[in-house]
Amino acid sequence: MSENMSEKQRPETDPEAVEEHRDIYGEDGAIRASFLSHIGAAIADRDVLALRADVADLHQSELGDLLEALLPEQRQALVSLMGSDFDFTALTEVDDTIRAQIVESMPNDQIAQAVQELDSDDAVYILEDLPIEDQDEILAQLPFTERVRLRRSLDYPEETAGRRMQTEFVAVPPFWTVGQTIDYMRDENELPESFSQIFVIDPTFRLVGAVNLDRILRTKRPVKIEEVMHETRHAIPATMDQEEAAQVFEQYDLLSAAVVDESERLVGVLTIDDVVDVIQQEAEEDLLRMGGVGDEELSDRVLTTSRLRIPWLFVNLGTAFLSASVISLFDGTIEHMVALAVLMPIVASMGGNAATQTMTVTVRALATRDLDIYNAGRIIRREASVGFINGFIFAVLIGIIAGFWFSDFQLGGIIAAAMIINMMAAALAGILIPLCLDKAGADPAIASAVFVTMVTDVVGFFAFLSLAAWWFNLW
Amino acid sequence: MSENMSEKQRPETDPEAVEEHRDIYGEDGAIRASFLSHIGAAIADRDVLALRADVADLHQSELGDLLEALLPEQRQALVSLMGSDFDFTALTEVDDTIRAQIVESMPNDQIAQAVQELDSDDAVYILEDLPIEDQDEILAQLPFTERVRLRRSLDYPEETAGRRMQTEFVAVPPFWTVGQTIDYMRDENELPESFSQIFVIDPTFRLVGAVNLDRILRTKRPVKIEEVMHETRHAIPATMDQEEAAQVFEQYDLLSAAVVDESERLVGVLTIDDVVDVIQQEAEEDLLRMGGVGDEELSDRVLTTSRLRIPWLFVNLGTAFLSASVISLFDGTIEHMVALAVLMPIVASMGGNAATQTMTVTVRALATRDLDIYNAGRIIRREASVGFINGFIFAVLIGIIAGFWFSDFQLGGIIAAAMIINMMAAALAGILIPLCLDKAGADPAIASAVFVTMVTDVVGFFAFLSLAAWWFNLW
Repeated sequence: MSENMSEKQRPETDPEAVEEHRDIYGEDGAIRASFLSHIGAAIADRDVLALRADVADLHQSELGDLLEALLPEQRQALVSLMGSDFDFTALTEVDDTIRAQIVESMPNDQIAQAVQELDSDDAVYILEDLPIEDQDEILAQLPFTERVRLRRSLDYPEETAGRRMQTEFVAVPPFWTVGQTIDYMRDENELPESFSQIFVIDPTFRLVGAVNLDRILRTKRPVKIEEVMHETRHAIPATMDQEEAAQVFEQYDLLSAAVVDESERLVGVLTIDDVVDVIQQEAEEDLLRMGGVGDEELSDRVLTTSRLRIPWLFVNLGTAFLSASVISLFDGTIEHMVALAVLMPIVASMGGNAATQTMTVTVRALATRDLDIYNAGRIIRREASVGFINGFIFAVLIGIIAGFWFSDFQLGGIIAAAMIINMMAAALAGILIPLCLDKAGADPAIASAVFVTMVTDVVGFFAFLSLAAWWFNLW
Repeated sequence: MSENMSEKQRPETDPEAVEEHRDIYGEDGAIRASFLSHIGAAIADRDVLALRADVADLHQSELGDLLEALLPEQRQALVSLMGSDFDFTALTEVDDTIRAQIVESMPNDQIAQAVQELDSDDAVYILEDLPIEDQDEILAQLPFTERVRLRRSLDYPEETAGRRMQTEFVAVPPFWTVGQTIDYMRDENELPESFSQIFVIDPTFRLVGAVNLDRILRTKRPVKIEEVMHETRHAIPATMDQEEAAQVFEQYDLLSAAVVDESERLVGVLTIDDVVDVIQQEAEEDLLRMGGVGDEELSDRVLTTSRLRIPWLFVNLGTAFLSASVISLFDGTIEHMVALAVLMPIVASMGGNAATQTMTVTVRALATRDLDIYNAGRIIRREASVGFINGFIFAVLIGIIAGFWFSDFQLGGIIAAAMIINMMAAALAGILIPLCLDKAGADPAIASAVFVTMVTDVVGFFAFLSLAAWWFNLW
């Protein structure tokens, strides 16, 4: 999509500009300090000509990176200095927080002006985070067709295909010939910026098929579209969750797909570039959730970040006190044998690590749908076996080290036995907890870690201290 | 790509077949048990006709899912029963281990036969994991052009653009007209399965530009290609790492890109569907590495899995004994005050969690290049502040609970002070350790967790126990 667009914006790209342009990134992939200070100086001098020369040529994602590297006040100054030369698609490439800062600093009529230049999916991306009143005021200033289109997209729930779709597309009736279709595209000025397939619709806008552009180019002019079209087996309902839509794209290697409303009427097109963003986002979400952070962004402020992280720490506080109370059951035992206090974190920590390994594999397999009822039994058996084998290996190791350290091989035997028990518990917790959360409809990425480490801490401390209390008869 | 292909394979898709076909997945996204047992029975009966009816129509990814759901011996039976009706592209959709099992069970001449039907990128995907002798034997049975093409791809190192590229593409000289180009495509039978742009080359095969298909369709026949082509600013060197190539695709929203050799000659094309796989793989790698598991697959056997996980457990063993030796410095103190042994895991665990939060955000920001020299200072300050604020909040909470529990508010004050210290250490370790690893050229996802929890354990135990020893004068 962008290649075509960048070409439009730069009809006469001279080689030098390209060279300079490639140069904005340094070796480390970050924007060069020299380029940044150059832009900073131009902003400070309010040198609009210099800014236009350097910034108007940038690709939207490069401009986005530049905005992120600037200071907040520089960002707003750059946007207002560039005026209508500012490429608003760049705002789809920056952090939510930065986009909000920039958009909120602009008057609504300027946003309305800017939004008209954008593809509908980019316009929606910028509008959707604004307060409803601002959205209404901006939409009121748009021409009728555009207002209706954007309103329809915005009316679909967040994170659905309807929100992400582009409402500009090419659609022709099935009885047209390839020649007619090509002539139409040559004469029509209101085509989308770029497209890779043409949809085929009946008079009521109901979707009947699609043709890839290469198919059209290979076919003689008199052939009818209905003869070369294929059935659109993967039309996406507008209310489908974007993650589900991304899975359809991935499974069937689609480049674009028709989006249809509840009566199967074509309302838009979802393209692979938006889907790639969704895939990235979802992978990122899983990673962040497993690390105990939610929808946090690097540009969030201290208090926001702090607040977002507290719930998880709070839950951990509960499980930490639970472990502490397990230990306190054995305070008499520890008083008689302080070595137990020294060694007990080893049992818990090794169990925690083994469980995290199993849990990570399980959560990922659930996310990619690689784990299902056909292999769950086999995988559970495999994890239990791995837990036993690795438990045994490390039990022997730790037993020997602890035995030498405290010159007490009975103690070494006790810690070895506790290790085997905890590693088995770790393996089972690591797979069963995410599986059960998934079955119960919860997101295994978000809640597994806390339950899993709770199990390995409690089992680890209890197994080690109770075995020791029983063996040495210390209660 | 696939849409076009599936259409070719099924020129007359009747609606019933489509219905049945959509039906192979159940509500939970896994293959229906009824479908699976039906296929299982057909395999057992060696009922080739039934298999063809049910399997030949499946999309490559559906057939891949089916293969994964079958038992190993069923997979091989299915492939051999289907013979030349088996869609070999399905092998690009299954686990490495399963692909290896299936391919190794096939005679080399059958593989050679199958590989000829595939796009070059799929063929390379299947060939690259075979032993060199088998590769040579298979290549020797292919026609000259195909042998040369596949050999060239295989000669590029693993995980480069050259390995992933498709060597089939459409290229025309710049002086051709749009009309000539369309006529060429209508008459030429040896075009790739599907494509979304045409490359423009000089007589020595050097790349001079590209045209998107929609551009050609919008342009009148007499216009010269050089007038509508755009410069290919994002040509990918064949030796570029696939992850880097994926970043170029993502940054510039490309659908396909030319792959060039060291003298800028066009050798292939990289398409977004391959890149989506790379993006998925890389996101998965980060997640698995942070969880302490390497390139593990769900289909790996017990001993492989066990062996892959041992190194990380081994490193954790070292850090666990380090923490234990910190505790052992204070064995006299603990003997006098067992409450310390009960409470100390709380300090370490809360620090570990806070550090994991910071580390997760940092590792992800480094992977997506959102963290660079321009914001590192600001992010470090932000994390330290968050650490202090959350440290303070939980210090007060834990201090009060511990004070009531042991009826000792001096002890509550000690644990509160230790908490603040450890939460600050956690914040700094969580950001500085991944940053330093990244600067040193190591993968922060793989090694951060172990160093970070080492810091929070050691600092947590030491701060709490030494403060208590000093305050209560217990050495």
